[in-house]
Amino acid sequence: MTAKPTLAVVGATGAVGAVLLQILSQRADIWGEIRLIASPRSAGRKLAVRGAEVEVTALSEDAFAGVDVALFEVPDEVAAAWAPVAVARGAVVVDNSAAFRLDPDVPLVVPEVNAHTVRTRPRGIVANPHCTTLTMIVALGALHAEFGLRELVVSSYQAVSGAGRAGVAALRAQLSLVAGTELGTGPGDVRRAVGDDTGPFPEPVALNVVPWAGSLREDGWSSEEMTVRDETRKILGLPRLPVAVTCVRVPVVTTHSLTVHARFQGEVSVDGAREILATAPGVVLCDDPAAGEFPTPADVVGTDPTWVGRVRRALDDPAALELFVCGDNLRKGAALNTAQIAELIAAEPA
Amino acid sequence: MTAKPTLAVVGATGAVGAVLLQILSQRADIWGEIRLIASPRSAGRKLAVRGAEVEVTALSEDAFAGVDVALFEVPDEVAAAWAPVAVARGAVVVDNSAAFRLDPDVPLVVPEVNAHTVRTRPRGIVANPHCTTLTMIVALGALHAEFGLRELVVSSYQAVSGAGRAGVAALRAQLSLVAGTELGTGPGDVRRAVGDDTGPFPEPVALNVVPWAGSLREDGWSSEEMTVRDETRKILGLPRLPVAVTCVRVPVVTTHSLTVHARFQGEVSVDGAREILATAPGVVLCDDPAAGEFPTPADVVGTDPTWVGRVRRALDDPAALELFVCGDNLRKGAALNTAQIAELIAAEPA
Repeated sequence: MTAKPTLAVVGATGAVGAVLLQILSQRADIWGEIRLIASPRSAGRKLAVRGAEVEVTALSEDAFAGVDVALFEVPDEVAAAWAPVAVARGAVVVDNSAAFRLDPDVPLVVPEVNAHTVRTRPRGIVANPHCTTLTMIVALGALHAEFGLRELVVSSYQAVSGAGRAGVAALRAQLSLVAGTELGTGPGDVRRAVGDDTGPFPEPVALNVVPWAGSLREDGWSSEEMTVRDETRKILGLPRLPVAVTCVRVPVVTTHSLTVHARFQGEVSVDGAREILATAPGVVLCDDPAAGEFPTPADVVGTDPTWVGRVRRALDDPAALELFVCGDNLRKGAALNTAQIAELIAAEPA
Repeated sequence: MTAKPTLAVVGATGAVGAVLLQILSQRADIWGEIRLIASPRSAGRKLAVRGAEVEVTALSEDAFAGVDVALFEVPDEVAAAWAPVAVARGAVVVDNSAAFRLDPDVPLVVPEVNAHTVRTRPRGIVANPHCTTLTMIVALGALHAEFGLRELVVSSYQAVSGAGRAGVAALRAQLSLVAGTELGTGPGDVRRAVGDDTGPFPEPVALNVVPWAGSLREDGWSSEEMTVRDETRKILGLPRLPVAVTCVRVPVVTTHSLTVHARFQGEVSVDGAREILATAPGVVLCDDPAAGEFPTPADVVGTDPTWVGRVRRALDDPAALELFVCGDNLRKGAALNTAQIAELIAAEPA
């Protein structure tokens, strides 16, 4: 690309957009202009990026004039409509919606795992994986490269900011209603205190966990459970990998956690797995329970890497490992991975 | 036993003891005297059971005089020391500590699953399983009877009352510190707000999840993870069942939840599984995601049954089912199952 390519951020005013502007301000500054684009009602607002105030432009075809790379942090239907427009105006699109993730003509890229796939993008679009997939995939990619993955069973502990600003607002409001009370001990008492407005979640999330994320798919599966399976297969290049996922929302603001039962092609050594995780780019091994060391969302939030702890070999299967993994769903789970993909594209020879 | 046997509750003043007194007041009244026993510092206190005030007796050998069945809700070391004393005085002990659960001469009883084992008790002691095991075992026992269990992968979402009154107090205190704030978005901000006193948990549990429960065992496993595996094997009579467990504490007051990946001997039908769960004693099937129906702790707390939802067949394994299970850890997870075992013993022919 050109020496100082022009970057556009579409959806600059959302929860992930805000983190993306922070990240662009913190990372090596390889960009010429950074143009901020959002819906017409946000046009004219000024947001800080790289230490300067930048005025938000309304989304339009002309907004993409001269843009080399456009990062989309918008709802699926907006991405589906506007990503091709940006491509037609000459931009490479990096999209963080679900619109293109499973399109065979769109690479789904995690730079630490499958950076080589970014160059083959017949539609001019590169997709960023779902935040829940991104919570585990860097660590799993490193283990897969060594041991060969055969099967995954995953349960999630997903933060409310995965549902955007509305998710955070719902938890904060509910916490204010239940803090200082004796609620949580009688059937439905939390639900009655919270009332009917549970925000973007089907049940109260304060003093509760909710086994649902996304929309209903066939046979009782949720869209996020299917997404984690399908994306993991695509990113690792294992189209028939058995993946069983249950997605559960928990009262954490930001940072998803996952338990992972991973079965490999043959016997695995815990020491070998720990060494891989301790040296893999983008991974921090935090695993000394005798010293009280394991990752938790409260410690991981705001950081870039995937944190892995509780590494154990399954007691009854020498080919399986248990892991507990945490990752900031707004950073590596969304904005950071998008920025990393953009940097890969910017570094391509002209 | 005699027509109206004498029951003793040892540890009547604890979190589980309090629920046990409620449950004894609600169930069919088969008992003659109900004697309340606790540590000497609680002696003389009066507690309500069956609508009457009963004075607490200090734990001593003589306190067991004339007792037919003694329910122990006390720490492991107290149970280990005093259960044999109660037996020597003629009582059958039902113990809810970990002291005897894996003793081959002590049956580990869940009345809906293995009631027949209660009669063979060479030490005069019957053990009550751990609350996390009890969250899933009634539903799993019913499915195992039909399909034959081959393997389990389990992740827990454990409530703070599993750590007793101190666990509840810690969560309530922490919630008061984080409610109404913007905490939970920066590394360590919750930890700094909570301070060093995290109660019985190794990390703050408000706005967090903590992948640890119990004490450290070999190879990085926690005692609660080992317990769930060992107890499940013993109760189901499957001594070599592969069971992989990760225990995680969540900011819920009462009611444990578990995700369960259960593999059976052959192909399973979801409709068949749902029918078993809908009719199994002690189980409520709550599974219609299209209507927003799945169990959550906020709805299940204070109820007796095991609630099961999110029943799906694994997409890549026709022999495996996914379940989300909730159960009140103080009721079926502790006090209720103890009371049910006592009732089995009371019903034995003299």
